[in-house]
Amino acid sequence: MAERALAADLHAYAADRAARVDAALDAWLPPEDAFPAILHRAMRYSVFAGGKRLRPLLVIAAAETVGGAVEPVLPTACAVELINTYSLIHDDLPSMDDAELRRGRPACHRVFGEAIAVLAGDALHALAFELLARPVPGVRPEATAAVVREVAAAIGTGGMVGGQVLDLLAERRPGQPAMPGWPADPASAVADIHRRKTAALIRACVRAGAILCDAPAGELEALDAYGAHLGLAYQVIDDVLDEVGEAQTLGKDARRDAASRKLTYPAVYGVERSRAIAAALTAQAVEALRPLGARGDLLAGLARLLLEREA
Amino acid sequence: MAERALAADLHAYAADRAARVDAALDAWLPPEDAFPAILHRAMRYSVFAGGKRLRPLLVIAAAETVGGAVEPVLPTACAVELINTYSLIHDDLPSMDDAELRRGRPACHRVFGEAIAVLAGDALHALAFELLARPVPGVRPEATAAVVREVAAAIGTGGMVGGQVLDLLAERRPGQPAMPGWPADPASAVADIHRRKTAALIRACVRAGAILCDAPAGELEALDAYGAHLGLAYQVIDDVLDEVGEAQTLGKDARRDAASRKLTYPAVYGVERSRAIAAALTAQAVEALRPLGARGDLLAGLARLLLEREA
Repeated sequence: MAERALAADLHAYAADRAARVDAALDAWLPPEDAFPAILHRAMRYSVFAGGKRLRPLLVIAAAETVGGAVEPVLPTACAVELINTYSLIHDDLPSMDDAELRRGRPACHRVFGEAIAVLAGDALHALAFELLARPVPGVRPEATAAVVREVAAAIGTGGMVGGQVLDLLAERRPGQPAMPGWPADPASAVADIHRRKTAALIRACVRAGAILCDAPAGELEALDAYGAHLGLAYQVIDDVLDEVGEAQTLGKDARRDAASRKLTYPAVYGVERSRAIAAALTAQAVEALRPLGARGDLLAGLARLLLEREA
Repeated sequence: MAERALAADLHAYAADRAARVDAALDAWLPPEDAFPAILHRAMRYSVFAGGKRLRPLLVIAAAETVGGAVEPVLPTACAVELINTYSLIHDDLPSMDDAELRRGRPACHRVFGEAIAVLAGDALHALAFELLARPVPGVRPEATAAVVREVAAAIGTGGMVGGQVLDLLAERRPGQPAMPGWPADPASAVADIHRRKTAALIRACVRAGAILCDAPAGELEALDAYGAHLGLAYQVIDDVLDEVGEAQTLGKDARRDAASRKLTYPAVYGVERSRAIAAALTAQAVEALRPLGARGDLLAGLARLLLEREA
């Protein structure tokens, strides 16, 4: 019973924070009818497509965990969602994953054309950094600049973009990786892809919330380890859902990974072992929060919710 | 004679500063053999393709004009070149301008494929912000954050990306613009496109150099006006060169604008009036420097050099 009440609380918490993020995104994105309207429509189409707002939620929850408030980290929370949206728009392009559906609707380029989709992604990328660098009362400008660097590094060649490149390369070279520099065994290779493609930004979100609130070094270290484990767990669960989920629940085409022979956890380990790996990573994420005592309960609860999600 | 000696000095100045920018770019870009190598090769292929380094030069010259040094603004100077390179890679994509040549060599996507070209652009975009936010001794973190915002705004929907969208829309709707929000006369429309597409970032470069060196408000205002006029002049000259230049000198296909019926200055005014407009804008840029006295000579000289360029 207590566990179920906690889960209900967490859902209410997540819904409340997501609503605040959505209101701020609406205020900070250019109005849909602002010139050139097609660009702003494309940006808003993809941002307001019913995403879970996981990354903003992690920025905010990390901030609240170390004693900070929501308001000062709201620009950063919105920025990481814009970055996530830009990356999904570009990943869905015909030259990349060539996806038809995203979050239950036609992908951005299917509605607005490929050129506008590329540019809507680029505009969201730029707007994210405008928000990240916004001066906020109570946040030291050194912390603001540090978070700009953390996020930029997490989405560059060592992070998200590098991971997307590896994801594409693995797809074209099914079976044993043999590219110079690529880990010899598929298990290391898929972990490397996922750490870059997904975990780096998720880890940066958790760190950003803590850094903006001037968390002491020990707490930042605990949150850093939490973010790294959670980020990897999240992508493993994503792989499993792609393998076993239904398009209707997922809001995107299911089993596309297998069809395009992507290097995923289920491809390397099978579905059942992948589930066990995700559970073990989640347990490690929760364990990392131990130094925070009861203050770690919020993030621990969120990690468990993500493990049990169905989309 | 004195004028020719000054021009020689300016060329030497520009060559020296460009060499320092190139050395810094080489140091800050991931090594070509770092994993995943194809991504880093694509980034370096496009960054080291023999560009004029105009935007970094303007950051540095603005800084030196207001009494600053080169070293503290070098990360920002490199960042704006990475942004320029990313935008060229994306503009050249098949879904956009579908260009074969850039700076005398096959466009990035023609060498590395479309997916890697999109991602190399995205990675340069992210790396630019990592450099922009780099802490520099002698630069206040407030100034660093302010420059991140200036640059981000200059390349977003109100600036570079918005301009590229308008550029594409104008191409598809030759003749009189009639889109809601579009200026009714082609002269205003082409000025709006160029201000966003090119002038906004050039203006931000000049402002960034001044802001990082804590220029007094009056000097920043003078440099701001200089940058706005110079930025527009630069794109008008670019249009003229596209119309009358040779592919060999330009390093890209000539007369592509006319072939794709782009809305350019020569298309609206003809070549001769466009040249006169560029000269008048350059004179306005130089005039804006008057409050700086002799300290404005460097930027004035650069504006005149750009007016007389052949590529």
